[in-house]
Amino acid sequence: MNFGQRDDPELPRYAGLATFALLPTLDSVDRAEIAILGVPFDSGTSYRPGARFGPAHIRENSRQLHPYHAVLDAYPFRAMQVADAGDVAVGPYDIPRAITVVERAARRLTTAGSRIVALGGDHTIAFPLLRAAAEVYGPLAVVHFDAHLDTWDTLHGASYWHGSPFRRAAEEGLLDLAHCQHVGIRGGIYDTRELEDDAQAGFQIIRSEAFLTDTPAEIADRIRARVVDVPAYISVDIDVLDPAYAPGTGTPEVAGIATAQLFAVLRAMRGTRIVGADVVEVAPAYDHAGITGLAAAHTAWELVTLMSLA
Amino acid sequence: MNFGQRDDPELPRYAGLATFALLPTLDSVDRAEIAILGVPFDSGTSYRPGARFGPAHIRENSRQLHPYHAVLDAYPFRAMQVADAGDVAVGPYDIPRAITVVERAARRLTTAGSRIVALGGDHTIAFPLLRAAAEVYGPLAVVHFDAHLDTWDTLHGASYWHGSPFRRAAEEGLLDLAHCQHVGIRGGIYDTRELEDDAQAGFQIIRSEAFLTDTPAEIADRIRARVVDVPAYISVDIDVLDPAYAPGTGTPEVAGIATAQLFAVLRAMRGTRIVGADVVEVAPAYDHAGITGLAAAHTAWELVTLMSLA
Amino acid sequence: MNFGQRDDPELPRYAGLATFALLPTLDSVDRAEIAILGVPFDSGTSYRPGARFGPAHIRENSRQLHPYHAVLDAYPFRAMQVADAGDVAVGPYDIPRAITVVERAARRLTTAGSRIVALGGDHTIAFPLLRAAAEVYGPLAVVHFDAHLDTWDTLHGASYWHGSPFRRAAEEGLLDLAHCQHVGIRGGIYDTRELEDDAQAGFQIIRSEAFLTDTPAEIADRIRARVVDVPAYISVDIDVLDPAYAPGTGTPEVAGIATAQLFAVLRAMRGTRIVGADVVEVAPAYDHAGITGLAAAHTAWELVTLMSLA
Amino acid sequence: MNFGQRDDPELPRYAGLATFALLPTLDSVDRAEIAILGVPFDSGTSYRPGARFGPAHIRENSRQLHPYHAVLDAYPFRAMQVADAGDVAVGPYDIPRAITVVERAARRLTTAGSRIVALGGDHTIAFPLLRAAAEVYGPLAVVHFDAHLDTWDTLHGASYWHGSPFRRAAEEGLLDLAHCQHVGIRGGIYDTRELEDDAQAGFQIIRSEAFLTDTPAEIADRIRARVVDVPAYISVDIDVLDPAYAPGTGTPEVAGIATAQLFAVLRAMRGTRIVGADVVEVAPAYDHAGITGLAAAHTAWELVTLMSLA
Amino acid sequence: MNFGQRDDPELPRYAGLATFALLPTLDSVDRAEIAILGVPFDSGTSYRPGARFGPAHIRENSRQLHPYHAVLDAYPFRAMQVADAGDVAVGPYDIPRAITVVERAARRLTTAGSRIVALGGDHTIAFPLLRAAAEVYGPLAVVHFDAHLDTWDTLHGASYWHGSPFRRAAEEGLLDLAHCQHVGIRGGIYDTRELEDDAQAGFQIIRSEAFLTDTPAEIADRIRARVVDVPAYISVDIDVLDPAYAPGTGTPEVAGIATAQLFAVLRAMRGTRIVGADVVEVAPAYDHAGITGLAAAHTAWELVTLMSLA
Amino acid sequence: MNFGQRDDPELPRYAGLATFALLPTLDSVDRAEIAILGVPFDSGTSYRPGARFGPAHIRENSRQLHPYHAVLDAYPFRAMQVADAGDVAVGPYDIPRAITVVERAARRLTTAGSRIVALGGDHTIAFPLLRAAAEVYGPLAVVHFDAHLDTWDTLHGASYWHGSPFRRAAEEGLLDLAHCQHVGIRGGIYDTRELEDDAQAGFQIIRSEAFLTDTPAEIADRIRARVVDVPAYISVDIDVLDPAYAPGTGTPEVAGIATAQLFAVLRAMRGTRIVGADVVEVAPAYDHAGITGLAAAHTAWELVTLMSLA
Repeated sequence: MNFGQRDDPELPRYAGLATFALLPTLDSVDRAEIAILGVPFDSGTSYRPGARFGPAHIRENSRQLHPYHAVLDAYPFRAMQVADAGDVAVGPYDIPRAITVVERAARRLTTAGSRIVALGGDHTIAFPLLRAAAEVYGPLAVVHFDAHLDTWDTLHGASYWHGSPFRRAAEEGLLDLAHCQHVGIRGGIYDTRELEDDAQAGFQIIRSEAFLTDTPAEIADRIRARVVDVPAYISVDIDVLDPAYAPGTGTPEVAGIATAQLFAVLRAMRGTRIVGADVVEVAPAYDHAGITGLAAAHTAWELVTLMSLA
Repeated sequence: MNFGQRDDPELPRYAGLATFALLPTLDSVDRAEIAILGVPFDSGTSYRPGARFGPAHIRENSRQLHPYHAVLDAYPFRAMQVADAGDVAVGPYDIPRAITVVERAARRLTTAGSRIVALGGDHTIAFPLLRAAAEVYGPLAVVHFDAHLDTWDTLHGASYWHGSPFRRAAEEGLLDLAHCQHVGIRGGIYDTRELEDDAQAGFQIIRSEAFLTDTPAEIADRIRARVVDVPAYISVDIDVLDPAYAPGTGTPEVAGIATAQLFAVLRAMRGTRIVGADVVEVAPAYDHAGITGLAAAHTAWELVTLMSLA
Repeated sequence: MNFGQRDDPELPRYAGLATFALLPTLDSVDRAEIAILGVPFDSGTSYRPGARFGPAHIRENSRQLHPYHAVLDAYPFRAMQVADAGDVAVGPYDIPRAITVVERAARRLTTAGSRIVALGGDHTIAFPLLRAAAEVYGPLAVVHFDAHLDTWDTLHGASYWHGSPFRRAAEEGLLDLAHCQHVGIRGGIYDTRELEDDAQAGFQIIRSEAFLTDTPAEIADRIRARVVDVPAYISVDIDVLDPAYAPGTGTPEVAGIATAQLFAVLRAMRGTRIVGADVVEVAPAYDHAGITGLAAAHTAWELVTLMSLA
Repeated sequence: MNFGQRDDPELPRYAGLATFALLPTLDSVDRAEIAILGVPFDSGTSYRPGARFGPAHIRENSRQLHPYHAVLDAYPFRAMQVADAGDVAVGPYDIPRAITVVERAARRLTTAGSRIVALGGDHTIAFPLLRAAAEVYGPLAVVHFDAHLDTWDTLHGASYWHGSPFRRAAEEGLLDLAHCQHVGIRGGIYDTRELEDDAQAGFQIIRSEAFLTDTPAEIADRIRARVVDVPAYISVDIDVLDPAYAPGTGTPEVAGIATAQLFAVLRAMRGTRIVGADVVEVAPAYDHAGITGLAAAHTAWELVTLMSLA
Repeated sequence: MNFGQRDDPELPRYAGLATFALLPTLDSVDRAEIAILGVPFDSGTSYRPGARFGPAHIRENSRQLHPYHAVLDAYPFRAMQVADAGDVAVGPYDIPRAITVVERAARRLTTAGSRIVALGGDHTIAFPLLRAAAEVYGPLAVVHFDAHLDTWDTLHGASYWHGSPFRRAAEEGLLDLAHCQHVGIRGGIYDTRELEDDAQAGFQIIRSEAFLTDTPAEIADRIRARVVDVPAYISVDIDVLDPAYAPGTGTPEVAGIATAQLFAVLRAMRGTRIVGADVVEVAPAYDHAGITGLAAAHTAWELVTLMSLA
Repeated sequence: MNFGQRDDPELPRYAGLATFALLPTLDSVDRAEIAILGVPFDSGTSYRPGARFGPAHIRENSRQLHPYHAVLDAYPFRAMQVADAGDVAVGPYDIPRAITVVERAARRLTTAGSRIVALGGDHTIAFPLLRAAAEVYGPLAVVHFDAHLDTWDTLHGASYWHGSPFRRAAEEGLLDLAHCQHVGIRGGIYDTRELEDDAQAGFQIIRSEAFLTDTPAEIADRIRARVVDVPAYISVDIDVLDPAYAPGTGTPEVAGIATAQLFAVLRAMRGTRIVGADVVEVAPAYDHAGITGLAAAHTAWELVTLMSLA
């Protein structure tokens, strides 16, 4: 039997401690097929920091998530045991050490049979999460929703920062270079060599402008054609959304997509074999009325639902 | 002769007391074919309260509404006498009593020949407003723009709350069960039985996702085909809009529609016989720069214009 | 042995679920001499609602509370077992029922030997908390920090609302009428009869203006002389602070006191036999940068420390 | 008989149109011994504009003002007829013309026997208000609470702007140069000649630093000794308060006084013959949770109460 | 050789003084083919003032602009010398004088061979900028992105305000009346005569509703067909965007277009001979998390890129 | 001759690039007796990051600083050449490297004869600044205004973070251990050993509570008695102020002092031989209406003035 959301009908959703979606903690259920893992780390941020408060903010804004997914006609928390694994105990002062710590925490879950949906934290954390996933599933097809490429090399002397996770992953052989895909790209570029480097890291690009002319279904078709049946890792940088929808993020880029478009693409990827996922770059200090937190929490729920259907 | 907006060219729009759209108060004109009625009540809210301040906030953000509607080519305030009937004198501590009080206030207007455009307040208030309208016009075709069904049964022991108005209305025979329509639905569901209950309450559902594939004109066609010539009541929960467009609301749901889409659907319903309307769930404490208040005020003006054309 | 704050040196304070002061939950330690109890109820509010989100907000802003109190030279969490008892499962729709529910939850703790520090919620909740405390300790000397008297009678037909808890408590014999004290009063009065009623309910008044001329030590002396050795219940409405210090509250009153003044008075009450306490009226939607939450969390910690010294 | 605040016990204070303190409009009572006059004009602002929205914001935040003043033991609205005279119909594009318009509107009230408490608007408006008051009462003792001198000469070619009203008034003989007083001064100075000019305009200076060493009663004594029995005009620029207490203003200056200090000084001036007053420079776009609006509304109420006692 | 953005790889983008896009100041490079000119003037505003702080806000939010434009495959700062010409020294107190001052400042640049991209400031400033451009290039085809017509006559006695720049320009012969185009119109209209006046001023109208049915490419085709090869001036009032995307503006109108739609139209105008441009009506006090500033900064960069390609 | 603030009377203070106090850049004047140095580094933050944006925010909020200091009767910018030295080119990813970079930048200034007033950035930066100052002036008497001790040892494995600068400085012999002073302390303590360590690092403590009973003059006397004539370094963590006055900071502590109290103490230190200073921990994302930025900018100006008098 799987334990779902807190079910005391007398306890309003705004009451009580906020685990993700009011799900049980991993401790209390012992095992989870899908584990929600907070990674409160933002020292890889190059512009506006604050994503270290992302996991708490996403959880607080996940109180209204419900058991039934009407579009996918699914009850994700019945289908599998989903649990909140808490936050990685990671300090802010040493990026390489943080990568080790996050990787270790993720491995504890993956080797115990959990697939992870991580709540960031800045995008640096995708790299150790990919390590943990690739160890179990082999080279991964990354589907990366983001305004930015994140396949850059060093910045200010750092190899590991929030602009490099997928380059590092490619270099380590964690990615299946024939099957990775960016979606929503529109951020700043210094030089076209960055685009060449990006292709080398295994990615094709669907820019945000595609959403003005193509339907989400068409875009999802292109992604599925790219991923095929390779084990997929979905990484959602919340800045893939326009700042109108997600102001609370570290490197906002205008002219992004709408939340409804993101969800439509995700749902059309039903059937993809998703073995790990993250929702990152939620910086609460720049949020208003929790709208970024709500978008991120709901995105994580979409990912959980997709994973529960596989 | 009808009295329109305040017309002292020397008094800037930001000056003076803010009646809705700077229209005359009902007291000052004696009668109104369309009455704007504030209902500052939010005790039926299940999540973020604050809509009791909605009427004041909507009025304050209605100062820039103008006399001419360019899309519908109409002067609503010339066509009919529209007046601000002020706020219902309703306290926050007793929901059943509040329903009686709101109903009585609404009846005073409807029996005097006014059609009401109510400014909420939470969605609980739709129930007494429907009572007052149905008394005059018989069973109503409700066109309900909302992220949520609002046909639920009790919550925390309450029969009357902001999630139940249309169920209660159906039970009392206020709705014409063959002609009601939800638009923009995407909120949380516990169980598919809720959808069955909803159908029983007379509603068909156009989900928010429809706006990704269908034009507003197509969606309006479906609504008109459902409503046909039954007297219609339009209820707009501002959370039908995405939180990007309307952050100031009590139960925000991401992935909603855009204001431009809402207005396009409403305008395409020209000719529908609208006998009452409301704009509800504006919670100013969560608003920013008045954008939710502006969206709500403009929505009310669209409704007034449609009603003035019938 | 008492269990104190979470002590994983690797887990930053911004990480992990936010219990009050990162203390253990009551479930995990079985007993507590001091129990922190959230009461997420705000339906008694007469003006700006939202204090139902107070407990979550206070907990989130209690992450930086530390073990040692330098002014009182005390380690409150070592002196006694302090634990977070979670939130009362109380719905928003029925005030009398809520009072019963809160009273029952409080009694479960008091009869198990815990003294309660409650986190509100609006001031209505003081009444059931006083019931639970008086049952164990007899008539109480209430020391009430607030801008408002809260000894009013009915409003909008309600006997129980956030302006009446101490009147109801006096009527039921829960207060020792010779020993109650208001501190910080400055809010609105309709008629001097309200002041007579207030005296009848057992209160003397130290207005906020006293803080301009008297030192906190002098004010504390007056309070101690009033309370003497009667079991005391400290009720802190966060609106006793000026809105500059606590904007996030339901009925803000300007010209209030500073947080440093409040703490100085509280600390000078060392030795008072405190048998229960609350910090109420934190409405997060009106807060900025968490400053009201921080003030409330720290106030609760001051109260815990005082209680740990008795 | 005087008509006081709206008295429908069923209508909550957050409901209905917001006249100042929920008082009757001047139209509805015909005459007023004290008239509240909004002056929504901010084109004299040299830094952050927005005070044109001040009157609406102050009124909206005056809903909680009550009939009884506990410190002065007075019922101001019973003692005299106080009414809301609405806003001056003044456009933003021509400062000299605005001065004429404001003066004319003020004169209509003063010649009808009303004393004015004006709600600004920027400080430019004090000049025409002084003209109207001096016409009736002769040269005035201005008591000016402000961070800035406002006796400067031209700026950017303008003679009339928010830094010059008291210089222009002195030049026109509207001030009794032996009896004017600044309180709370701390703003920027280019050159000591400005201080000489200021003395020439009739002012003595009590700087904000005085509040660190002197009690409000001592400061009030100095003001009373300066004003003696000359007809007094009290002008309160809300920026006399520290930005912590009043962030919503056009030229904020840190290290100001607290609201409680301002009120204590005002109350200690009881008995001064006040013939006019204003509260200016409330710029709502920079306010948070209405705290500046609340401070301004309450300040106006203090002024009304003082005037009602004369 | 052209000097591009600051290129110290050690200096993070959030560090150092914020010139537009971290470009060199005009002083430091002597000449510029494209000059960014701030015009911190907002005294023509009819509703919410504050755009005087627009230039500083746009510059601060332009730090993340990059050298390469991926959609247009262009390096605008390599193609031409682009420099930040600073702000016009224009005071707030005299609109006609301001127009002269702005015109003179603009002429200094245009006669030195620079094309201007102005950062407002309210829309009043378009008029003197058009004067300066027309002097060099003759009658202009204005492409005007805005919610409002801005071809109105006087308001509150002023001929020059933010609602009249294009009427005044037409009257002076600065516009080529056969080739001007509005895009995104939806704001308030008093009377259909305003539309007739607008046509007389040389404009055709593409309303915001067009974006619901037509693609940006189709809309751009209509604009290009209207402009043909007449020298074009692009004026972007940021309120053409929906308030969700640009809350920080003076006369927000709901139901606007998305930033992505605006950019798609602009990019599709590649090849148009643009001789001047502005981005106006950014009022930072109403912005949140800089999203309006980011949209405006990026819009200016799009305009620069288009101009660099001509 | 010294160059003071920008003096174009036509250029409003809100216009043009914001150097500190609109002073010349160091480049443009070649030398400075007092150099304002931005240090946009916040990777040493243990709680809320964001102080990397502090220098830009402080500069933007320094536009209203004026030439004359009325309390100290001084013209600081005439007395000495004060210039804005820009920001240190320091990346966020490596704390030890950042310390080297900041030290080198500071040394370039100190060895050229400038005394530095640094704008942070988090408190980590005090350590390299102390190195540069001590190199020139020998062991320093640090006067440290802060809610926190900042003499802690390692956290999360880091030796250099914002809680350790003065411990590291003491260890290196940069401090004169007989003459250092904390002022305003009230932050969290784990164990009394921290207080012992603090004493070992050369500090005496004046807690924030002292401000409730002692005058600023008395507190300044204690500081002067401690510092005597040792070259002094003044370090102001903006969190010494109560969050009401300075919400925009990384580790806010309630019950702090008022800005007016801070300034009174600083001014009473006139005559102290100040050889370096900093204002740190301004985190703009948590600020409102710039009030924290204004407080920090003005504090820096107080420090400059004091230094100009020595």
